[in-house]
Amino acid sequence: MSEVYAARRTCLRERCNAGGSAAALVSRPANVRYLAGAAPHGAVLLLGKTEDLLVCAGPPGDRPTEGRPDELLSVRVLPGPGGDPAVAATGLAVAQGAESLAAEDHHLTVVRHRAMRSVAPRLRLTDLGQAVEQLRVVKDEEEISCLRIGAEIADQALGELLESILVGRTERHLALELERRLVDHGADGPAFPTSVGTGPHAGRRGHRPTDRRVEEGDFLSVCLGATYRGYRCEIGRTFVIGTSPADWQIELYDLVFSAQRAGREALVPGAACRDVDRAARQVLDSAGYAENLPTLTGHGVGLEIDEDPQLAPAAMGKLDACVPVTVEPGVHLPGRGGVRIDDTLVVRPEADGGPELLTITTKELLAL
Amino acid sequence: MSEVYAARRTCLRERCNAGGSAAALVSRPANVRYLAGAAPHGAVLLLGKTEDLLVCAGPPGDRPTEGRPDELLSVRVLPGPGGDPAVAATGLAVAQGAESLAAEDHHLTVVRHRAMRSVAPRLRLTDLGQAVEQLRVVKDEEEISCLRIGAEIADQALGELLESILVGRTERHLALELERRLVDHGADGPAFPTSVGTGPHAGRRGHRPTDRRVEEGDFLSVCLGATYRGYRCEIGRTFVIGTSPADWQIELYDLVFSAQRAGREALVPGAACRDVDRAARQVLDSAGYAENLPTLTGHGVGLEIDEDPQLAPAAMGKLDACVPVTVEPGVHLPGRGGVRIDDTLVVRPEADGGPELLTITTKELLAL
Repeated sequence: MSEVYAARRTCLRERCNAGGSAAALVSRPANVRYLAGAAPHGAVLLLGKTEDLLVCAGPPGDRPTEGRPDELLSVRVLPGPGGDPAVAATGLAVAQGAESLAAEDHHLTVVRHRAMRSVAPRLRLTDLGQAVEQLRVVKDEEEISCLRIGAEIADQALGELLESILVGRTERHLALELERRLVDHGADGPAFPTSVGTGPHAGRRGHRPTDRRVEEGDFLSVCLGATYRGYRCEIGRTFVIGTSPADWQIELYDLVFSAQRAGREALVPGAACRDVDRAARQVLDSAGYAENLPTLTGHGVGLEIDEDPQLAPAAMGKLDACVPVTVEPGVHLPGRGGVRIDDTLVVRPEADGGPELLTITTKELLAL
Repeated sequence: MSEVYAARRTCLRERCNAGGSAAALVSRPANVRYLAGAAPHGAVLLLGKTEDLLVCAGPPGDRPTEGRPDELLSVRVLPGPGGDPAVAATGLAVAQGAESLAAEDHHLTVVRHRAMRSVAPRLRLTDLGQAVEQLRVVKDEEEISCLRIGAEIADQALGELLESILVGRTERHLALELERRLVDHGADGPAFPTSVGTGPHAGRRGHRPTDRRVEEGDFLSVCLGATYRGYRCEIGRTFVIGTSPADWQIELYDLVFSAQRAGREALVPGAACRDVDRAARQVLDSAGYAENLPTLTGHGVGLEIDEDPQLAPAAMGKLDACVPVTVEPGVHLPGRGGVRIDDTLVVRPEADGGPELLTITTKELLAL
């Protein structure tokens, strides 16, 4: 794996050099992990003029770390507590002869930036912008395989839940049970707080589980994901409780299903992100639900659960092959509930069989 | 409750006015919640010249919110997605005639600060510093009662675990079960990721649970906490698995127990934070464990699990009455394990009976 991290750092270094900076400071934890293999609490990565350094706030024993730091990378640990690795790294950049340093202005606070400036008043601080986030958008097969395993784990956890009795149990209990099953099946942990919505809560994006119990006739929406080796996937399904769904439930489900399928089918390399969003959205719009739609119908996933690209009406940019995204349209009717269907897929060229579906739990309307 | 939030805002406003700013922008979520009753995702609080406003990123239905916004407070919701409430609030401050605005430079990123500057080039942006964090240090009885309930919940969850069979179960399972029990007993959720360490992992602060199983003869350290109405408490205990602890285990346990008691007994209004730390630390130091100690032996708790004050060798400041803190010395011997004992207490004057212990689970060395 070490070569992978070194290659990523080379790639970033080239972008920095092209932008006129010989050195870069990466502070956002997911970006540090992407380039260094691990992101100990508070650690920053310096791409220096002569050497790359992972600068850590304290001894590694003090705080456990996910991932393992790249062995090719030198590690510096600040001696005492209270030091800021970003400030220390700035000093190290100057010691290496850097005249300018590109930093992540969208992550550093004003106070940290000021402290960096004060230890190196002659250093020119520039903005690295979202350079690392942009590198992270297209995944390699190793990364995709972590997402695939995470998706399998989420599918298993969800499948087991469906075999159990649901009526009478609370949203909170169901969410906790799902999270326990994720860990049982080998996840590092949940990729995000598991959402379980019943009855009027069903179909709400990001609904936080309450003490409401599952009742006959409810819609039940579940959204969960596993983290596997740092990579986060997402699956969402909606079910009906009881033997026979009501007509309005079948109608709404079919509509959201069509929208989600339209979104999935629009996932081709080169497609504009806003066109994928529009493909899903217009199915719901034209059925009169324009007011009940979420602001986005999908997003990238990876080391974070919400990454670029966004699938939304104002999104810029196009999809590339090997970009994993969610497709997750939904309709929520206040007071009545609703439907969301959410998959994680990888954009693939048509020649390779089109989009690769990672979350394979059925999307038929199941009555449980 | 509304009067409480209004009084807190008045208090902050007076500090700002004294510092020469007629308006303040609060962006750190726990600070927003403290002053507004709730912190919807991304929301900021403007203390304006003529009106206080809670500026939210999107409609409240989109993202669930903990707490309920103070009814005395006007709420503005940004119309479209992608807007930054901090930038919008800056514009609103100018519209109210503010010439300067004090912002939380330790929370705002460089990019957000730049965007605020660009919408209001004539506005003087100053640093509010940790003014709200300082207000939060001393708690009122309502806040302490939330912490007390949280501590009861954590005690219950821990007590139930101790009644079950532990040998053969993994750290991860025990941690998940504890978190489930916290929620069962009415917690909003865990106050922080539950830590369970067995054998060589026991006694490590912040140990992340692994698949190691509990064995006869192990030390078992558990650290958990409940969030109740936003307030977070913490309890940590160490046990021995099996009928009779080894001599070294009894010795180490007694030592950490003495250190923790010394720390608790040093909690009096007016005591220097570093003296409380020293009281606990010197017991362990003089037994030869100076190398095996954590960087702090306690910290404040409240809306966040790690607040001011810090109980550490270099800490400044003194304790006031009604400040809740943890006292949590520990010794970890690499390869062998160790002991941590952690309570949440409220500093109270001697006349009121001295420090109030919120986490009442026994600190005898239990063999389970």
